[in-house]
Amino acid sequence: MPQDVTVAYLGPPASYSHQAALGAFDTEEHTFIPQTTIGDIFTSVQTGATTYGVVPFENSTNGNVVFTLDLFRDRSSGYHVVGETYLTVHHSLVSSASDLTGLTRLYSHPQAFGQCEHWLNSTLKGIERIDVSSTSRAAQLVRDEPGSAAIASAAAAEVNGLKVLARNIEDTPDNTTRFFVLQAAEMRSPMSEEGGKGDKTFVAFSVDHAQPGALADGLKVFKNFGLNLTSIASRPDRKTRWNYVFFVEFEGHEDTQNVKDALEELGTFCAEMRVLGSYVDRQKLAKKPAAAS
Amino acid sequence: MPQDVTVAYLGPPASYSHQAALGAFDTEEHTFIPQTTIGDIFTSVQTGATTYGVVPFENSTNGNVVFTLDLFRDRSSGYHVVGETYLTVHHSLVSSASDLTGLTRLYSHPQAFGQCEHWLNSTLKGIERIDVSSTSRAAQLVRDEPGSAAIASAAAAEVNGLKVLARNIEDTPDNTTRFFVLQAAEMRSPMSEEGGKGDKTFVAFSVDHAQPGALADGLKVFKNFGLNLTSIASRPDRKTRWNYVFFVEFEGHEDTQNVKDALEELGTFCAEMRVLGSYVDRQKLAKKPAAAS
Repeated sequence: MPQDVTVAYLGPPASYSHQAALGAFDTEEHTFIPQTTIGDIFTSVQTGATTYGVVPFENSTNGNVVFTLDLFRDRSSGYHVVGETYLTVHHSLVSSASDLTGLTRLYSHPQAFGQCEHWLNSTLKGIERIDVSSTSRAAQLVRDEPGSAAIASAAAAEVNGLKVLARNIEDTPDNTTRFFVLQAAEMRSPMSEEGGKGDKTFVAFSVDHAQPGALADGLKVFKNFGLNLTSIASRPDRKTRWNYVFFVEFEGHEDTQNVKDALEELGTFCAEMRVLGSYVDRQKLAKKPAAAS
Repeated sequence: MPQDVTVAYLGPPASYSHQAALGAFDTEEHTFIPQTTIGDIFTSVQTGATTYGVVPFENSTNGNVVFTLDLFRDRSSGYHVVGETYLTVHHSLVSSASDLTGLTRLYSHPQAFGQCEHWLNSTLKGIERIDVSSTSRAAQLVRDEPGSAAIASAAAAEVNGLKVLARNIEDTPDNTTRFFVLQAAEMRSPMSEEGGKGDKTFVAFSVDHAQPGALADGLKVFKNFGLNLTSIASRPDRKTRWNYVFFVEFEGHEDTQNVKDALEELGTFCAEMRVLGSYVDRQKLAKKPAAAS
């Protein structure tokens, strides 16, 4: 495969998104392209500037990445979800200072602050916190600012020549972030096995004059068709006050008859319904045999 | 009533929370006490330091305030929700500068950035954004920093001697934030009318080995008892990875037999279930006659 198979991720390099992309794609066959925002990753896939995009979806400690949900709501075409991948996230406190005394400012991504809340409140309570676009950006910033530290990965410390002042400061030791892999609209992930048992499907829907009660009706459809739910989220639809777009993920592939029937029934009472994709965990895909050399 | 009936709100003064508190409580009979964080508001009610607390719950454009949901999850006793109140939120760009040229930094609360996303991307794209604890704190900060501006209320501009460079920059003109009113655990809001028709009740529940599918079962209970859902949210439970605490609000008062029966049934398959309170919109409460003077 040529080297121009490209993967967009949330940069700068050494970010958790970068690590997730490196874990989900063969590094010899892909080129990894950093992007400034999650929106830029969607754009790069929608415009064909990159082959794939890796976007953070949810964290086991801190919940859904609402920026990503809002992009799934607002970017209505031009891509599909074709994979998921998981990264165990261990945060470090990194700085050019040699210890905690004298620190006056902390930089990180709001998700990382949220994942280290207990440690921060017990060890660095009251220190000013500044939210930036990514943990690796935070590590870049503290390089040149005495008295500051970042919550970032140990990898980001190494890239930026910083010291690791504390390791594994996340509140829960199995802190895990799930990412989705996006590809152009015409691409689909094939069924992984007979009946789509190993696959998951992600859909977004909204209902006319939506009430939260509409979610109960939607969920009943999945139950009626025996589809096991794996994720539920909602976001304001930004059109009508207190109306919502619901996001539901369930086990099964959109190409099976059962899922087709379920989505057809769901569609009958939805104002809008979109299948965002069917997919497997890319890390579970069987490694193909190494090329003969 | 003595002046020592106190209301805690997210400060500093002139914040949207302050405006919401002023709209929900008679200003002649209450003293309004600013707090630094939403957690401090819970603490002030739990410890009896203030009589009431007003906390932001959700915004019509930007969704749930996850910090508040996490506090409802983590603060397991010592308070009840006894009221709700709504505030139409109009954001302004405020600064000591006299126009937009030369602005290099924007301060605001992340919710406010989220509510003005379109305007920011079209008018001030690429300018550095710094998240702070409240919009009124943002207005304080820009007072002394040339080249900076804040997204805050026109009231905050006035309090801090700043100019309003742009008004009504929120993405949706009916942008509304809903607040909950907290009071000590032994206090309850009485039923507003026969059968609890005018009331809403807020509950939190989690299920053993919770799957998102457990939410479908929970929602079915409300449907079976004819209780109309008005809000649904979920947050990671922070105990077991991918387990969730669900938050459901429905129409009805916890003192009616129908609601009691529904919650008893819900409780039978929940690992934990808490009724956070029943309440009405405080602004709809009949104004009492003015005191003779």
